[in-house]
Amino acid sequence: MNFSSDNVTGILPELLRALSDAAAGTAMPYGADSWTERLVRRLSEVFETRVEVFPVATGTAANALALWQLAPPFGAVFCHEESHVAVDECGAPEMFTGGAKLVTLRGDHGKLDPKELDAAICRTGYRMVHRVRPAVVSVTQATEWGTVYTPGEIADVAAVCQRHGLPLHMDGARFANALAATGATPAEMTWRAGVDVLSLGATKAGALAAEAVVFLRPGLSKDFEERRKRAGHLMSKMRFASAQLLAWVEGDLWRRVGGHGNAMARRLAGGLAALPGVQVVAPVEANMVFVHLPPALRDGLRAEGFRFGDWPGGEPSLVRLVAHAQTNEAEVDALLETARRLTGAG
Amino acid sequence: MNFSSDNVTGILPELLRALSDAAAGTAMPYGADSWTERLVRRLSEVFETRVEVFPVATGTAANALALWQLAPPFGAVFCHEESHVAVDECGAPEMFTGGAKLVTLRGDHGKLDPKELDAAICRTGYRMVHRVRPAVVSVTQATEWGTVYTPGEIADVAAVCQRHGLPLHMDGARFANALAATGATPAEMTWRAGVDVLSLGATKAGALAAEAVVFLRPGLSKDFEERRKRAGHLMSKMRFASAQLLAWVEGDLWRRVGGHGNAMARRLAGGLAALPGVQVVAPVEANMVFVHLPPALRDGLRAEGFRFGDWPGGEPSLVRLVAHAQTNEAEVDALLETARRLTGAG
Amino acid sequence: MNFSSDNVTGILPELLRALSDAAAGTAMPYGADSWTERLVRRLSEVFETRVEVFPVATGTAANALALWQLAPPFGAVFCHEESHVAVDECGAPEMFTGGAKLVTLRGDHGKLDPKELDAAICRTGYRMVHRVRPAVVSVTQATEWGTVYTPGEIADVAAVCQRHGLPLHMDGARFANALAATGATPAEMTWRAGVDVLSLGATKAGALAAEAVVFLRPGLSKDFEERRKRAGHLMSKMRFASAQLLAWVEGDLWRRVGGHGNAMARRLAGGLAALPGVQVVAPVEANMVFVHLPPALRDGLRAEGFRFGDWPGGEPSLVRLVAHAQTNEAEVDALLETARRLTGAG
Amino acid sequence: MNFSSDNVTGILPELLRALSDAAAGTAMPYGADSWTERLVRRLSEVFETRVEVFPVATGTAANALALWQLAPPFGAVFCHEESHVAVDECGAPEMFTGGAKLVTLRGDHGKLDPKELDAAICRTGYRMVHRVRPAVVSVTQATEWGTVYTPGEIADVAAVCQRHGLPLHMDGARFANALAATGATPAEMTWRAGVDVLSLGATKAGALAAEAVVFLRPGLSKDFEERRKRAGHLMSKMRFASAQLLAWVEGDLWRRVGGHGNAMARRLAGGLAALPGVQVVAPVEANMVFVHLPPALRDGLRAEGFRFGDWPGGEPSLVRLVAHAQTNEAEVDALLETARRLTGAG
Repeated sequence: MNFSSDNVTGILPELLRALSDAAAGTAMPYGADSWTERLVRRLSEVFETRVEVFPVATGTAANALALWQLAPPFGAVFCHEESHVAVDECGAPEMFTGGAKLVTLRGDHGKLDPKELDAAICRTGYRMVHRVRPAVVSVTQATEWGTVYTPGEIADVAAVCQRHGLPLHMDGARFANALAATGATPAEMTWRAGVDVLSLGATKAGALAAEAVVFLRPGLSKDFEERRKRAGHLMSKMRFASAQLLAWVEGDLWRRVGGHGNAMARRLAGGLAALPGVQVVAPVEANMVFVHLPPALRDGLRAEGFRFGDWPGGEPSLVRLVAHAQTNEAEVDALLETARRLTGAG
Repeated sequence: MNFSSDNVTGILPELLRALSDAAAGTAMPYGADSWTERLVRRLSEVFETRVEVFPVATGTAANALALWQLAPPFGAVFCHEESHVAVDECGAPEMFTGGAKLVTLRGDHGKLDPKELDAAICRTGYRMVHRVRPAVVSVTQATEWGTVYTPGEIADVAAVCQRHGLPLHMDGARFANALAATGATPAEMTWRAGVDVLSLGATKAGALAAEAVVFLRPGLSKDFEERRKRAGHLMSKMRFASAQLLAWVEGDLWRRVGGHGNAMARRLAGGLAALPGVQVVAPVEANMVFVHLPPALRDGLRAEGFRFGDWPGGEPSLVRLVAHAQTNEAEVDALLETARRLTGAG
Repeated sequence: MNFSSDNVTGILPELLRALSDAAAGTAMPYGADSWTERLVRRLSEVFETRVEVFPVATGTAANALALWQLAPPFGAVFCHEESHVAVDECGAPEMFTGGAKLVTLRGDHGKLDPKELDAAICRTGYRMVHRVRPAVVSVTQATEWGTVYTPGEIADVAAVCQRHGLPLHMDGARFANALAATGATPAEMTWRAGVDVLSLGATKAGALAAEAVVFLRPGLSKDFEERRKRAGHLMSKMRFASAQLLAWVEGDLWRRVGGHGNAMARRLAGGLAALPGVQVVAPVEANMVFVHLPPALRDGLRAEGFRFGDWPGGEPSLVRLVAHAQTNEAEVDALLETARRLTGAG
Repeated sequence: MNFSSDNVTGILPELLRALSDAAAGTAMPYGADSWTERLVRRLSEVFETRVEVFPVATGTAANALALWQLAPPFGAVFCHEESHVAVDECGAPEMFTGGAKLVTLRGDHGKLDPKELDAAICRTGYRMVHRVRPAVVSVTQATEWGTVYTPGEIADVAAVCQRHGLPLHMDGARFANALAATGATPAEMTWRAGVDVLSLGATKAGALAAEAVVFLRPGLSKDFEERRKRAGHLMSKMRFASAQLLAWVEGDLWRRVGGHGNAMARRLAGGLAALPGVQVVAPVEANMVFVHLPPALRDGLRAEGFRFGDWPGGEPSLVRLVAHAQTNEAEVDALLETARRLTGAG
C-alpha cells in the first residue's frame, strides 16, 4: 500500500475512457483539434471568465513556463522557501527564465505571510539596477505542507502584489484538493481573489500526464505559444492532454476525487494522532499528512509493506503520507490497525 | 482524409491496450517502476547492446536534451540546413544548450554530405577561443525530405565525426520508417554505424506521446537525469510512456507500422507521378511524398477534403503528403482517383 | 611590425591624456558622472539626434547586448555568414539572447544582399510557432572583408527590414574607418539610412577599451540598463570609458585616425598588387587588405619580422593585413620593399 | 567629500603611470602580450603557488564567470544572504550559470556560519534529481558589512566544503583591505585556508577597471577561456588590465592602499561612535563603516556636502560610509567636526 505520493496513482477510469474515445481517427496536431477547443470553452465556463489554456505534460513545465512568462531574466520571483518551484524542480524556473532569482520566504506551514512578502519586495530594491526587479509572486495551492489557503488568504497575498504591481501565480498541482477542502468555486479561488495565472495539475489527481497553464486575465499570454514550443512542451497530439482535462472537470469529477483524497488523509491523521508518540505537525486540510513517527513505528510500518517517504531536509522522524485517488478506507484502516498493533495501542 | 502529417494519427490499438493495462494499481514515480525497468532491458535486447533510455513527451524535448547533453554552451552542432533541429524547434537546441551554435549545412534531399561536413568542422576553427568549438553532429533518420540514410551512409558521416572526435546524434522521429525502408537492424542503423545517441520517436508512429533519448555508448549520460528534470521533462508517471514504448517494439510492431506508412507513401507517389504536370522531387523512401502539384490540382484536392501542407520556404507549388498508421489503401486510392479526375487523366 | 590586427595598437595620446585628466578626484560610479553626461550630449550632436549611449568594455559585449535587446529568445538574427557576430564571438549573441538563432546569409565581400535577406526572412516562416521569429538584422560596417557599405546600400538593407518590421543593428567596430572611407556623416551612415542601434567601437581605433551601444531611435532601450549590469558590463568607474569616447570624437579625431588606417591599407594593397603572384581579393575600402600571397613570399615576410594572420577557414594562401593608428608609411614601405626583394620584383 | 563607495575613487598614480608606459607600441591582443605573461608569473610569486589569471573589467564579471566555472546549471551556490553575488549583481550568477540556484544563508555581519552552511548543504538534498546539486560555496572578503574573515575562519568554512566535496570561491572585491586588516599573506588568506578560486578586485582599490579571476588550484580552469570570451569579457587589449594589476601588487602597493582605507574607516568610526545617538553596527575591520545616524545628523551632513548612502533594505537610519584611496585624514576630520557641531557635541 503506497502512501508515498499522489504520483503513484494510475489513471482514473473516466480519463482512460476519454483517451480511448479520442484515440481513433485523425486530428490536427499542436492544439488545432476539437478537444482543445472544447477544453478552452469548458474551462472558461468552469472559471466563469474567458481563460486561455495551454496543456503540458508535467507540473514542473507548467510552473517554469508560467514563471518565464511573467518574469524577465533580471526579475525576482517571490515564493515560499519550501515551495515546489523553489526546492523540487531542480532549478527549472531559473533555467527557463534565463536566470531570474527566486527570493524565498518563511511562513507557517507552507503559506506566504503577506507582511513578510511586502517587506521582501521592498527590500529587493525595486528599480535599482544592481538588484533584480520584483516580477511575480507564486503561491502553492494546496501547499507543500498539506495546508490550504482560503480565498480570503489568497486575496491578502494578492493585495500585496497589487500594491507593487506584480502578477500572482498559483501552483495548483493539488488545486482540486484545495477546491474540495474549501468549497470555493474555481473563480473564487483564483481570479476573484487576485490570481492571474494558474498551473492546473491533473496528473497527481489521476491523469496519465495532463497539466495546463491557465491564464485568467487577458493580455498576459503574449508569445507564450513560442515559449512552450521552444521548451519542448508543445505536444503534437494535444488532443490527448485536452481530452483528459475535459473528462477530469466533467461532472465535477476533479472535486470528487480531490475530496476523496482529503477525506482519506483526515482519516489517516485522526487515527495516527491518537497513538502514543505520534505528532501531526501541520493542519491536514488537503490529502497529505506530515507526522512525526517514533522510529520503531516508522520502520515497523515499512517492514509490513506500507510505503511513505521521509521528508527531505526535515528531522529524521518526520514523514509524509499522501492519500490519492486509489487510496481507500480499507488501506487507511489497515495502516492504522498495524500502527496500533506496533505501538501496543491496539 | 488527412495527409498533412503523421502527427494527425491517433493511438495504435496495441498501445492503447498497454496504457489500459498499466492504468490500475500504484507504481513508484519518475521511472522507478517496472515498466521502465523492462523497457531498458527490452531496448538493450533490441539494440543488441546495453542502452540507457530516458523517455520524454516530445521529439523536440528528446532532440534538445540530447544535444544539450553533448554540446557545451560554446559548442557547435553540425546539422542539415533543413533539419528539424535547425528549423522546426523554435530554437529549442539553442535554449537548452545555453546558446550553442547550430552550424547548418547543405546536402541533397536532407542528407549531410560527409565532405561538406568535414570542411565545415575544419572551418569552424577548432580550439580558437573566438569561435565556437565543434561539439556534435546530428543527422535525421528518415530525413525531413523523406529519404533514408543507409547504414553505410551513416558510417560515412560517423567516420568524419570520429576523425574530429565528435559524437554523432540521430534524430529518429521516423526511425521505424527508416528501419522498414532499409531492412537494417536497430544496431546496424545506429551504434554499429557509429551513432552514439538516438532520439527515438514513437509519437508520429502511433503513440499518444512517447519519445526517448537512447544512449548507445556507455559514459555519455552523466547528469542527464538532472537535465531532463530541470527541463520539465521528467514525467512523474513514467510507467505510461514506458508502457507505450514497450508495446511499440513488441513483436516488431514498430517496423510493421513503419513499413505500412512507407508502402502507402510509395503507392501515393507512384500514382501521382503518372499525372501530367506533377513532379515528385525527392526519392520516396519513407512515409513522405514531396511533390509539385499544378495549382488547380492542389486546390481541387483540398476542395474535395484532402488535407496536406504547403512546404514552408519552398516554391508555392511544392506540397508534402504524409502517410501514417491510419492511412489505408482506400484513402490513397481515393486521392489518386480524384487527382486523375481533376487533371483529366482519369 | 605588426599588421595582424588593429587590436595590436596602443592608446592614442589624446585618449591617454583624457584618462589622465579624469584620474584625479572622485566621481559617482555607474555612469552618474559628468563625463558620461557630456558623452551623451556630445554624441547627440555628432549624430544629429537624441541618442542614448551605454559604454562597455568590449565589442563582443556591445554586439551581444544590442542583439539581446532586440531579439527575444525565440527570435532570429539575420547576419552575414562571415560576420563577427556569427563567427568570432564564441556564441555570445546566442548566450545573451537566451538562445536566439543566428540565420547566416551569403553575400559578396561581407555585405548582405537585400534580395537574399528578404528571401531568408520570408523563409524563416514569420509567426509559425515551430520556427524562430524574425527579430533583427545586423550588418557590419566596415565589413569583415574590409569593404564599406555606402549610406545608399545601408538604406537598401533597411528597406527590407522596414518591410518586415525589423530593427537594423550595425556592428561598428570599424565605424570610423567607414566614415572616413565614405565621407558620410554619422547621421547619414546610421539613422538617416535606417540603422536603429549601433555598436560603436573605439578600441580597434586607439582606445584602451571603449565601446558603446548607441540607440538612435527612442523607445528601444527599455531595461537595457539591467541587461548590461547583469552581463557584468556595467563598469563602476564609467567616467574612464566615457572620457575616452569623448576625446575620440573630439575635433574629428576618430575620422582622422580612421582615414589614416584606410590610407595605409590602400598604400599596402597598391604595392602588393603590383607583385607577381599576388592577388588582392576584396576591394580595399577600409583598413584591411585580404590578399593571396605565394607561400615563399608569405613565409619570407614573416621570417623578416612582419606579423599578419592567415584567414581562418580560407584558402591557405589567403592572409589579412590590417593597418591601424600606429601603422606608418615607413612600416608599409618596409614591408613592400621586403616583398619586392623576396619576389625578385625589387 | 565622497564617502558613498570606494568606486568613486579615481586611478592611483602608480597605475596611471603603468598605463602610460604600456600605451605606446604594438602588442598581441587577447592576453598574448608580455604584461599578461608577467602578471601570471608575478601573481604566482605573490600567492606562492602556480596560479592561472584571467583579467576582466568588472567584479560582477569576475564573480559570475568564476561561479559559472564551478557550478553546473543544475547546481546550487551557497552564499550569504547579503553577499554581493546574491543581491547586487542583478542576477548575473544565475544568468551565466544557465540558471544555477543561489542558496542564501544568514550569518552575523556578512560572514557565513559553518554550521548553518553544513546544514544547508545537507538540506539541499545532495544527488536527488528534484533538487539542485550542491556545487560551490562563495564567501566575500572583506564582507559586505566591512568585516574580515581571519584565515582560521576561512579554513572553518573550507572544512565544510571539503566534507561535501565542494570548491570554495572568494569574492575578493576588497581583498587588499582584508590582507591589510589581518596581516595575512595572500597564500594564507586563500589556498592555504582552502580557497580554490579568487575574484581579485583592484578597481575599488584604485584601478581604472581591473579585476581578475585567479585559479589557485590546478585543473579548475578547463574551458574558462571560452566562457570569458563568450561573455564578452575577453578584452582585446589585455595588456592594459594586466599592466594595472602588475603595478598594483608591485612593492606591496595594494596592501598599503588597503591599509590606508582601513585606517581612515577606523578613524571615522572612532569619531562617530563618540557622538550621541550614533551607533556603529558592525566591527570596522576593513574600509567601511555601517552606522545608525540620527536623522538630523544624517541630513545635516549631506546638506554640508558629505556624500554617503543609505543601506538598501536596512532601517532608514542605517548608512554606510566608505573610505578609499583618495580619502584623507583632513576629509575624515572635516566630517567628524561637522558631525560634532551638528550634534552639539563639538
